Amino acid sequence: MDDTTQQDPELSAVDSLHEALEQDDIELARDIVATLHSSEIADVIESMPSRDRDNAWQLIDPELEGDVLSHMQDAVRAEFLEQMHPDKLADATRNLDADDVADILQDLPEDVADTVLRSMDEQNLQRLSSILTYPEDTAGGLMNIDVVSVRANVSLDAVARYLRLLGEIPAKTDNLMVVDRENNYLGVLPLTELLVRGPETTVGAWMEEEAYLSANTPKSEVAKLFEQRDLVSAAVIDDEGHLLGRITIDDVVDVIQEAAEQAVRSMAGLGEDDMFSPVFVTTKRRAIWLGINLLTAFLASWVIGRFEDTIHELVALAVLMPVVAGMGGIAGSQTLTIAIRGIALGQIVKTNIKPLLIKELTVGTLNGILWSCVVATIVILWFDNLFLGLVIGVSMVINLIIAALAGALIPLVLKRFGIDPAIAGGVILTTITDVVGFMTFLGLATIFLVA
Amino acid sequence: MDDTTQQDPELSAVDSLHEALEQDDIELARDIVATLHSSEIADVIESMPSRDRDNAWQLIDPELEGDVLSHMQDAVRAEFLEQMHPDKLADATRNLDADDVADILQDLPEDVADTVLRSMDEQNLQRLSSILTYPEDTAGGLMNIDVVSVRANVSLDAVARYLRLLGEIPAKTDNLMVVDRENNYLGVLPLTELLVRGPETTVGAWMEEEAYLSANTPKSEVAKLFEQRDLVSAAVIDDEGHLLGRITIDDVVDVIQEAAEQAVRSMAGLGEDDMFSPVFVTTKRRAIWLGINLLTAFLASWVIGRFEDTIHELVALAVLMPVVAGMGGIAGSQTLTIAIRGIALGQIVKTNIKPLLIKELTVGTLNGILWSCVVATIVILWFDNLFLGLVIGVSMVINLIIAALAGALIPLVLKRFGIDPAIAGGVILTTITDVVGFMTFLGLATIFLVA
Repeated sequence: MDDTTQQDPELSAVDSLHEALEQDDIELARDIVATLHSSEIADVIESMPSRDRDNAWQLIDPELEGDVLSHMQDAVRAEFLEQMHPDKLADATRNLDADDVADILQDLPEDVADTVLRSMDEQNLQRLSSILTYPEDTAGGLMNIDVVSVRANVSLDAVARYLRLLGEIPAKTDNLMVVDRENNYLGVLPLTELLVRGPETTVGAWMEEEAYLSANTPKSEVAKLFEQRDLVSAAVIDDEGHLLGRITIDDVVDVIQEAAEQAVRSMAGLGEDDMFSPVFVTTKRRAIWLGINLLTAFLASWVIGRFEDTIHELVALAVLMPVVAGMGGIAGSQTLTIAIRGIALGQIVKTNIKPLLIKELTVGTLNGILWSCVVATIVILWFDNLFLGLVIGVSMVINLIIAALAGALIPLVLKRFGIDPAIAGGVILTTITDVVGFMTFLGLATIFLVA
Repeated sequence: MDDTTQQDPELSAVDSLHEALEQDDIELARDIVATLHSSEIADVIESMPSRDRDNAWQLIDPELEGDVLSHMQDAVRAEFLEQMHPDKLADATRNLDADDVADILQDLPEDVADTVLRSMDEQNLQRLSSILTYPEDTAGGLMNIDVVSVRANVSLDAVARYLRLLGEIPAKTDNLMVVDRENNYLGVLPLTELLVRGPETTVGAWMEEEAYLSANTPKSEVAKLFEQRDLVSAAVIDDEGHLLGRITIDDVVDVIQEAAEQAVRSMAGLGEDDMFSPVFVTTKRRAIWLGINLLTAFLASWVIGRFEDTIHELVALAVLMPVVAGMGGIAGSQTLTIAIRGIALGQIVKTNIKPLLIKELTVGTLNGILWSCVVATIVILWFDNLFLGLVIGVSMVINLIIAALAGALIPLVLKRFGIDPAIAGGVILTTITDVVGFMTFLGLATIFLVA
């Protein structure tokens, strides 16, 4: 029995591998790598600084190189693909499933991809061609073509003999695909049915209608269907209803995982950055995000600048203004997160926008009133100024209501314009809560406190 | 053929269902619900405001009620469980898998759970007892006990006859479990092997060693193992190595999805809030988060307050100080996000903390210098004040370096103290970048500009 469950295999592996490499103990390092699965090797390499990655790569059994590549994050994989010779790449991809090869090829510059394709044998090329027809992020791009298909009118006994003749059934096969003479998809025959039903009965008698996917279905919807129907695999068909291939749950799990990672990264403006992307690549990517945020920061500054005279007369305003703006930002980002997730999960539809808006506005108003009272009390005691307390209280209520409105509406508007709300939503929200916060607080102060 | 792939089934379903309910067209509404899968009904109900949820619930085929419950988010499900009579609940759970029933029971107050358990028949009770022994968030709590197990020394032909006798193989069965006389887990026999190998050969000849899980394994590690090894199911064993049950990929997909949602929600302090939780529940949950953030906002105010005299002399400082603090917060949260995800994915280990810290500090310094120059230039032109430009430039560089340091170290420190970095990390980071930003900018200004 292996000891997978005894300790975290990966944590210890990276540490010991790193130490072995530091001490130039190549033999030990090779032994450690040999105990790992391809996906674990990919994980380990991803968690290494760039300079160690190449050393670790040298230790991988050449047979596994392709498999390791197929498990890597796109950003890290791109780094390796750039350095590899096309012939070597063609070798590495020889043992891979066609969908994984397609995935890798789509990351390559066109001329390199061509070279790799040319160095492949006829059979591999054929396996690839139908997948490469479809964009990477569709059911067609995700599918594999290792499908076992049978006709509806044959007996289960005949199917059993056919399978024994094949000698191998592709991994993750839970259903045989049932097709007609023209390869039109009809349904599935679960292996579990094949095993328990009478051998003399026909495929058609036990065939089940099962959810299938058009090759053009976006991968987010593929993931949704798998989740909702608890599928292990699903057929992929073309526009005419012909069976093209199948998608298996392991690839869908990757889609779900990537989407989740993407959601978190987008909010911080990180894009495809990985933990150990080269320093200059990371710096450049993040610089753009900082630049965008700087624009909004200066917009806020400009607003404050309009009230220089007011602040000069009552410096307490400068002390307190970040509270008004900050609380608006925090409250708004809660609503924003709910709305962005609701859109991503398909839970926000035409008919529930209004109740959602009403709910968020109510919550914003209630929390606005609650915390305004607290803040007003503190300010009155701290600065011994009743009107300053009232002004900050009123402006906080206003900003929290605007924050709720903005948090709920920004994602809907961005969505309509085809912009990912997870990327742009936070920046726009902060701009609004800063501008509204500073403007109401300093504006009301100008009218009621210093005029 | 159904039309799953033609349009988003759920979007249209919620909208039309909502409209049917508004128009009191119960027949139409019932028809719409009847076309949906249990998981889709759960999705639809989750995306409805509370008051509509009960009406929609009435339309569900009683046979499906348990299944719909098992697909709901915990927060929404709790709402329904509170209202249901224990007997009705026992009825609803009768057709469910034992792991789903266990999941629901663990959400109930103890006395209600007892009543439900008492109203169950003997067989269901037995199915449940072994699962309920283990916490909900372990392999034991996730597992199902519908395992088909065979001995290593029997022939494949005997296995085939046994399966036909059983008449049904549980869904998501890709492997039969191989055990010895004492029910010790030995390995698996893939159905695909059973189908292609000679009937006279024995189970032992084709048995494969496959990753298995101890019942106490936390669910995050269960998910990791499934992802890394591309599993469809895995055996769960007790401390003595006895086979207890199995975990299937559909439950693991739910774990992955929940963890991803949790990661996004934690960062906004949302907890288990769902889109249409009751207003007062939502207000209370968010109020706590706002209160915590208010504390840090006042801490920043207090820092600014130390420099009232300086601001009074040079109001431009009040205009510009949010830029310094804000840019630090943005840069820091990029590092923070990378570090939190690295920890969550198990990619940050002892040996790569140092290179990670060095990388983040380098990126922080480079971006600090880049944007400091930009900001300094703008400030010099805007305020016609060379020293003000220099002071803001220097304080921005300092704040961005501190931000990188804080962003990388906060999650590591929180982790060590057993606190979820995704929840507390952002608040602590903002506190630091605000305090450091205001302090360096106003402090340097006090020394070099107004003294």
